[in-house]
Amino acid sequence: MNTLPTDLTTLAEAVIKRAASFGFTIATAESCTGGLISSCLTSVPGASETFQCGFVTYSNEAKTRLLGVPVDAITDFGAVSDIVASAMAEGAVAHSGADLAVSVTGIAGPGGGSTDKPVGLVYLSLAQTGEDAVIKRYVFAGNRDDVRRSAVGAALELMHSGLEERRQSAEEENGS
Amino acid sequence: MNTLPTDLTTLAEAVIKRAASFGFTIATAESCTGGLISSCLTSVPGASETFQCGFVTYSNEAKTRLLGVPVDAITDFGAVSDIVASAMAEGAVAHSGADLAVSVTGIAGPGGGSTDKPVGLVYLSLAQTGEDAVIKRYVFAGNRDDVRRSAVGAALELMHSGLEERRQSAEEENGS
Repeated sequence: MNTLPTDLTTLAEAVIKRAASFGFTIATAESCTGGLISSCLTSVPGASETFQCGFVTYSNEAKTRLLGVPVDAITDFGAVSDIVASAMAEGAVAHSGADLAVSVTGIAGPGGGSTDKPVGLVYLSLAQTGEDAVIKRYVFAGNRDDVRRSAVGAALELMHSGLEERRQSAEEENGS
Repeated sequence: MNTLPTDLTTLAEAVIKRAASFGFTIATAESCTGGLISSCLTSVPGASETFQCGFVTYSNEAKTRLLGVPVDAITDFGAVSDIVASAMAEGAVAHSGADLAVSVTGIAGPGGGSTDKPVGLVYLSLAQTGEDAVIKRYVFAGNRDDVRRSAVGAALELMHSGLEERRQSAEEENGS
């Protein structure tokens, strides 16, 4: 049996292949998924050509220290918020030198949920040099493991589509 | 089916429980395991009380940029070496503020092996504030997935025993 689920490693392989074929480098910034996205990406042989690094910023202090997420953003909007998700992704690009980074912050449970922010709430963000960050909001069903797994799948999908969009933008710029 | 193997998450749970009971904070610095150790640690509900952050420093540049591993150490001894492993673990403690950190650098394969440094060669290191880093050398059998999985298990074991030793040292200091 493989250490990681094959549906996720297959998706990760598609991301690595696309990044490599376009010549883009990538990075990750993970809170609730705790390194699962980078684990999937690095399960692919040759990932080192494109995957630079991952930041597993689990504590709020780590989000600020490693990624430069403003303390005020965490205090005012909470660690699980669109603002913090985009600051994490932008911080990952800035602190890694990669072309593109995905971030995840969410409430995997079983504790930590509230009426406004239920267990399963996850924000993803995709940031890249020279572009505004994209933010996605989800509420995933299931237990802690289900939420984390769903978030990893969605993050890899976001990275996969983001890479194609970046290539198209680059082509348009070169063609104009 | 769980996202991560239960033998590893059970071990991770023992690490988190021990760290919490002793009041120690922990961090990780991973190269070839790519975030699998932090994924296992954060699979445990309540991990945020003890797990601060993880550095997935896959590229050599990331090892230097994020963890302060000297460029000369990588050039002279290679990214997979005892020197780099201990510099990664020490860098993780210094850059996270955690009490204790484990690092992994190795050759998971299928490429990258040589006679001196075969596929399966893995160095682990455990660093903590106020102590010299401990270094362990392994040559794990099997394919890329097997090597990564074995390295995660060994790293969690090292962290588990290191936490107990740290507690004993602290008790002796307090008792003297």
